[in-house]
Amino acid sequence: MRLHEWVFATASWRKQAGLEGGEPGADAEVLDEVIHGVGAYIMGRRMFGGGDGPWDEAWTGWWGEEPPFHAPVFVLSHHPREPLTMLGTTFTFVTAGIESALDRARAGAGDGDVAIAGGASVVQQYLAAGLLDELYLHIVPIVLGSGERLLENVGDPVLEPVKVTGSAAVTHVKYRVVR
Amino acid sequence: MRLHEWVFATASWRKQAGLEGGEPGADAEVLDEVIHGVGAYIMGRRMFGGGDGPWDEAWTGWWGEEPPFHAPVFVLSHHPREPLTMLGTTFTFVTAGIESALDRARAGAGDGDVAIAGGASVVQQYLAAGLLDELYLHIVPIVLGSGERLLENVGDPVLEPVKVTGSAAVTHVKYRVVR
Repeated sequence: MRLHEWVFATASWRKQAGLEGGEPGADAEVLDEVIHGVGAYIMGRRMFGGGDGPWDEAWTGWWGEEPPFHAPVFVLSHHPREPLTMLGTTFTFVTAGIESALDRARAGAGDGDVAIAGGASVVQQYLAAGLLDELYLHIVPIVLGSGERLLENVGDPVLEPVKVTGSAAVTHVKYRVVR
Repeated sequence: MRLHEWVFATASWRKQAGLEGGEPGADAEVLDEVIHGVGAYIMGRRMFGGGDGPWDEAWTGWWGEEPPFHAPVFVLSHHPREPLTMLGTTFTFVTAGIESALDRARAGAGDGDVAIAGGASVVQQYLAAGLLDELYLHIVPIVLGSGERLLENVGDPVLEPVKVTGSAAVTHVKYRVVR
């Protein structure tokens, strides 16, 4: 939870969640920037949750009845599942791999961008495949004892920092992937 | 070398090295800030170089006749060696551990700060021991395939980002270690 507190503290998040108040400032601006213009999301199986293996269809994600995406979400999985429509968000489960998911997300995004929502393994796969244009890191100063490392198994990408900002809670660094 | 190119490109570095030209801007300001007010340095054996084991006294560091420190440098080692005075810099070899090295560096620094010059293992030891006040990261976007990880074996320090800046070459994040 400490990794995500900066998000919940922003005015942007609270407004989207139908709440008042919250902090303006650099973190809220970054959150707006990250959300703005996204037409579709891609995420990994673990980010959607529900455990490994064939789907338990009682699991409809971590986010309750109204997930915060409000755009098509493509969930990478090795296990097929029918699309799931929640309030404002349709989750489509893709078993044909990352390029297929990207094609479908592009089609679903219209004029919008496709955002890789996570987790680390999915970001790694798209970066290694040369399919990322931007990598936006939100660095929270917590030393985790273990877990997935973001920049493993990604080859030798050329990254150029194009924006740095932050608050006392988090540092935001946006990289352009140079090709 | 790619990790350090941003330093050599700055006007600050070139001036210190007796050269003209170089880039002004955020990186040069950070380098000035990092160097300014330092009264003594501490570094690990590998940063001083010369291989492991008892000293080969023919080895006088990587830096040629005039090392860039211009302040007392305390080198942590398991192997004793007489102090080595170069043009503007005296290297003192400390075998009694990090706290002893810090005491000696504080005494040698006068009113100045003590800077841990590196490498990663030495930074880790001082951070884990609660002896760091600030951690200033200079993040160059190169994915190294292997090497020492900076924030391993440091416990669970509370870090607060107090400054972020950078250029297209490097991102600088200064953390205060909260106690």
